[in-house]
Amino acid sequence: RKVLHAGQSWFVVTLVGVGIGINAALISIITEWLSDLKMGYCSDGWWLNQQFCCWEVEGDEGNPCDSWHPWSTVTAARWLIYVIFAALFSFGAAHLVRSLAKYAAGSGISEIKCILAGFVMKGFLGLATFFIKSLTLPLVIASGLSVGKEGPSVHLACCIGDLVASLSSRFSHSEGKKREILTAASAAGVAVAFGSPIGGVLFSIEEMSHTFSIKTMWRSFFCALVATVTLSAMNPFRTGKLVLFQVTYDRDWHFFEIIFFVILGIFGGLYGAFMVKFNLQVAAFRRKHLANHGVAEAVTLATLTAMVGYFNRFLRIDMTESMAILFRECESGGDYDNLCRTAFQWRMVNSLLLATVIRVGFVVISYGAKVPAGIFVPSMAIGATFGRMVGIMVKALNNAYPTSGIFAFCQPDVPCITPGTYAFLGAAAALSGVMRITVTVVVIMFELTGALTYILPTMIVLLVTKSVGDFLDVRGIADEMIRFNGFPFLEKEEHSFNACVSRVMTTDLHTLPVSGLTIRDIERILANTKVQGYPIVSSDSSNTLIGYIGRTELRYVIDKAQQMRRVSLQTPCSFSPQRDDPERSDPLDITSALAVGLDEDSAAEILEDMASDHALNFWPWVNQTPITVSPQLPLEITMQMFKRLGPRVILVEDRGSLVGLLTVKDVLRFTMTEKQDSDSWDDRGGI
Amino acid sequence: RKVLHAGQSWFVVTLVGVGIGINAALISIITEWLSDLKMGYCSDGWWLNQQFCCWEVEGDEGNPCDSWHPWSTVTAARWLIYVIFAALFSFGAAHLVRSLAKYAAGSGISEIKCILAGFVMKGFLGLATFFIKSLTLPLVIASGLSVGKEGPSVHLACCIGDLVASLSSRFSHSEGKKREILTAASAAGVAVAFGSPIGGVLFSIEEMSHTFSIKTMWRSFFCALVATVTLSAMNPFRTGKLVLFQVTYDRDWHFFEIIFFVILGIFGGLYGAFMVKFNLQVAAFRRKHLANHGVAEAVTLATLTAMVGYFNRFLRIDMTESMAILFRECESGGDYDNLCRTAFQWRMVNSLLLATVIRVGFVVISYGAKVPAGIFVPSMAIGATFGRMVGIMVKALNNAYPTSGIFAFCQPDVPCITPGTYAFLGAAAALSGVMRITVTVVVIMFELTGALTYILPTMIVLLVTKSVGDFLDVRGIADEMIRFNGFPFLEKEEHSFNACVSRVMTTDLHTLPVSGLTIRDIERILANTKVQGYPIVSSDSSNTLIGYIGRTELRYVIDKAQQMRRVSLQTPCSFSPQRDDPERSDPLDITSALAVGLDEDSAAEILEDMASDHALNFWPWVNQTPITVSPQLPLEITMQMFKRLGPRVILVEDRGSLVGLLTVKDVLRFTMTEKQDSDSWDDRGGI
Repeated sequence: RKVLHAGQSWFVVTLVGVGIGINAALISIITEWLSDLKMGYCSDGWWLNQQFCCWEVEGDEGNPCDSWHPWSTVTAARWLIYVIFAALFSFGAAHLVRSLAKYAAGSGISEIKCILAGFVMKGFLGLATFFIKSLTLPLVIASGLSVGKEGPSVHLACCIGDLVASLSSRFSHSEGKKREILTAASAAGVAVAFGSPIGGVLFSIEEMSHTFSIKTMWRSFFCALVATVTLSAMNPFRTGKLVLFQVTYDRDWHFFEIIFFVILGIFGGLYGAFMVKFNLQVAAFRRKHLANHGVAEAVTLATLTAMVGYFNRFLRIDMTESMAILFRECESGGDYDNLCRTAFQWRMVNSLLLATVIRVGFVVISYGAKVPAGIFVPSMAIGATFGRMVGIMVKALNNAYPTSGIFAFCQPDVPCITPGTYAFLGAAAALSGVMRITVTVVVIMFELTGALTYILPTMIVLLVTKSVGDFLDVRGIADEMIRFNGFPFLEKEEHSFNACVSRVMTTDLHTLPVSGLTIRDIERILANTKVQGYPIVSSDSSNTLIGYIGRTELRYVIDKAQQMRRVSLQTPCSFSPQRDDPERSDPLDITSALAVGLDEDSAAEILEDMASDHALNFWPWVNQTPITVSPQLPLEITMQMFKRLGPRVILVEDRGSLVGLLTVKDVLRFTMTEKQDSDSWDDRGGI
Repeated sequence: RKVLHAGQSWFVVTLVGVGIGINAALISIITEWLSDLKMGYCSDGWWLNQQFCCWEVEGDEGNPCDSWHPWSTVTAARWLIYVIFAALFSFGAAHLVRSLAKYAAGSGISEIKCILAGFVMKGFLGLATFFIKSLTLPLVIASGLSVGKEGPSVHLACCIGDLVASLSSRFSHSEGKKREILTAASAAGVAVAFGSPIGGVLFSIEEMSHTFSIKTMWRSFFCALVATVTLSAMNPFRTGKLVLFQVTYDRDWHFFEIIFFVILGIFGGLYGAFMVKFNLQVAAFRRKHLANHGVAEAVTLATLTAMVGYFNRFLRIDMTESMAILFRECESGGDYDNLCRTAFQWRMVNSLLLATVIRVGFVVISYGAKVPAGIFVPSMAIGATFGRMVGIMVKALNNAYPTSGIFAFCQPDVPCITPGTYAFLGAAAALSGVMRITVTVVVIMFELTGALTYILPTMIVLLVTKSVGDFLDVRGIADEMIRFNGFPFLEKEEHSFNACVSRVMTTDLHTLPVSGLTIRDIERILANTKVQGYPIVSSDSSNTLIGYIGRTELRYVIDKAQQMRRVSLQTPCSFSPQRDDPERSDPLDITSALAVGLDEDSAAEILEDMASDHALNFWPWVNQTPITVSPQLPLEITMQMFKRLGPRVILVEDRGSLVGLLTVKDVLRFTMTEKQDSDSWDDRGGI
């Protein structure tokens, strides 16, 4: 039986991984085809994208091959068709989302963070969401909107995880175990989005998961591996590579370059702060004025982006493609549109600056639109254009003063500054600035490019970025969105030192006496209260705590009993142990302590057993040992308990009698109203 | 004040990082010099090693340059001198360890895991240990013993961390905060040992730290970065590289090679199981028979290793050097002693097999000897020789049947099998097998070599290794050593579902009544009991729990009071709040809840305040809200509390009165005696 269980886990995780890999490959293929469709079509078959159309045919940038026909030869007409396609794609995506699956909009990372912390959100991981998001994501990316596919990819991965887990008897009954599968799926989602399996595992640790365990990490590892191998076997890019851009830098960096790297780090921090602040303002504006105009908004944004973007050489092409170009060393045949030529350097700087500024603007207004939209790749693209700009300027400086000052450290006759590495570091800084993650970014950048010698510079840049962010009191955009949406979520590093439990707890309790209620009474209580569960206390006045029962369990037992045999509304109910079985104490799994995972058969059995005594006994569904604390306990300790032990409710007991109840919402309500210390920099971000 | 605090943290972590970097660089330099000393000396200066002696002089393997003189030209004499040096070095190391710092022996990782989990071990991180271990580590490595420097490097890093933290007012008072610094230091230790900063961070998460927090991870990141930059700036290898071996593989792997990769994975798992089993037996033998012969043992081992090793081309040279050779592709000038020649392939296979077997034997008996000794690099070296052997055999197979069966997938005219990658994967498998870590190994291997395309094969190999290990019920060697030594340590994944607190708790309590004791009574209690702390209960018979006070705090307050003013042995003592100050409830930091971190001045102040009432009040040092649970709570939940909240003691309270007490030792005693389920494969390692 144990072996069967273990086998089932392996099977479920494998299935989840394979599903994620296949889905990612399909999305990649469709996205590429749609993107190329904006420019032209293939006469050998409408289903071929430019790359496959011109397979094994050499061609140049302007005219790739004979089978590939651009829509028109006139620039103005090309531009018009490009814009029209963008508008069409975004209309399709926004309309589908609006009419079929509202939850498919946005990135989904904030919501999944909450779900992993125990928040329940019906339908967010449902089948409709999955299909619509899978279908609309390629449309959105192809429409050229300044959004990425990484966040949505995590959401899709979690949908697959939830779906497969629901089909398995082992995972469908326990929310805690399901969350472990979701954590693993989120790792695989990042893994396939970036082609970075270890980066995915770290992302699930650093950003997603609420509690950390070696077992979950190992599961994430396995799931990410399976998903990546599947993707790699499907080989959607036909390059044999997992990632769109892979660079090798032949030259090493110099210690004096750290001065310039610091600039990139500061940019990352400032960009993150700017993006979080203004994107939230846009979100507030959207909620107020554009709530019912989601489709129009998306179409307008896509049209604008396409109209403006077409005229900048870095905005016109796909974001991943532009990053691949910007990261490259000039010597290894990396010239694109004269990017490497010294004669054009100032023109390039202008172009890059323009691309940076315009894209920042578009990301601010696009992220959060009612279509699937991530912020990872847009941020990286912004960082890459800025970084390359800095790199070209440093190179120009070096050319102007080849032997003076700091440039004296350069070796003669060898190119000293590699602008591509600046683009690389800029991308890392911007990504870290907006998400506020560090170790994950290092690993992702490293897996994306294989730039081994640049680990130290990357770490230095991210150090600066994080310091700037901490100094400006920025939180990650996912956390800010959680706060903006008002989800009940305790942040990992949230503390509250100066209060005790009694100040925060709810004292207005809905308790159930251990005996003396009829089913009618319970039905009435269920109808009149909205709480998720009820403490059970002794019938006398001492209010001694006996246990805790969830609303779901009450409902379930009553329904089941009514189905099985004729319990009338007058049947008395009891929450105390049966006399003949005083030692029935099933050990409860800690994470599912309140969602007692009895399967259908044993529930029926227990109810059958009870048929004799003409009373309905809820005892097997009562959590007999809810976590209790004393009212004098510092709030900080209960926050740690919520975060690390994960109960939905903590009961407050003073010398044996129940005096209050604490949920995450109570804690959040308290920490929100408590004045924000302005001098908490140290606790928040300082090392 | 806050800013000052934050600044102090940054300063401490930076200092720790710099210290670790410098120490690592010095150890590298001395090790290399000593290693070369076994072969010859430099006539330009005795302090130069072979590399610096022959700086900028080209030479071949046999006769590197004119300034470098081998001790003799006769092979037998060379061999003798080689052996004599090995014996001398190991004698020096073992003697120093034995006479000056016993804690400097071994790897130290097990002990540090316990220290990070809250166990106190006086002197283990002391100055003597640090100096002796720093001094003897190069001697041991140079003596050629089959041990590595990675474990000791972590120990040294933690010594530096502890030392610096003790000097800082912020960290010296709180054990919890000190442990955070130690975690960061352990990351930096691995980072400098392998030149792998991110690998170090992951090691601290996966292997070392008991609880995970983003803040600690970030601190580890920063500390590892500083240490690596320092090491890189010192540039001990004069190559500009952080690591001794860096390889790039030009060729990609083929899907059919997975069959052979699985063999490597299985080898890793079997090797780990073998090593753990027999090394523990050797450890038991050593404890029984060799306890007082540490020096003789080490000398014998070193002499034997040198005598036998000299005749195998892979055992003679340094382990890292041999790995660098084995990892290389044949095409990029990687031939060493005809390793790549097809004509010599079977001779090489023999030689590699012999090297594998002999080294396994030596590692089994050497790891645990009374000298500084790690097991990381020896394991990797064993994996590398085995892997290369498999690689050469697969290549031979391919050459014999170039187009049949699976080899049909190879591209014609291009070398299909790269034996170097097999060595690489074998090293990963062996390391993972013996330590039972996965994600860390992927990152370390990757940072060591920059082999980007081999992430997936590495992950597949480690997957197999872990499955084999789980199937054989192997735990990591560090965990086994903890168990062998009987340290109180709850493993992260240890569970016990079928018991409740009342079965495990200590009921034989030493409590203090809240009033009515004199100092004489307390002195007597302190002298007659050995427990680390005392619950405080009400004076009446109800046994109501008031609080908890540690032995250290009692001792401290009494000593302080005796120093400051004349308290006699008859002075009454009280543990209740003073009447005029009922609301004195300093919020306590959770991790230091029992080590109340009052600094000297405020302690004196409080004692001064109390001078008036002619009684000694311990109230400010009493932990007023110890964690309490009810006796019916499943033991599993208290284990989670120990692991995640980290208290030293949990009190058991039944409806307001104290009935028992639980420490980690109680839990361990229980889980040890409880029969080991043979069918717990699923819980332990299954996914």
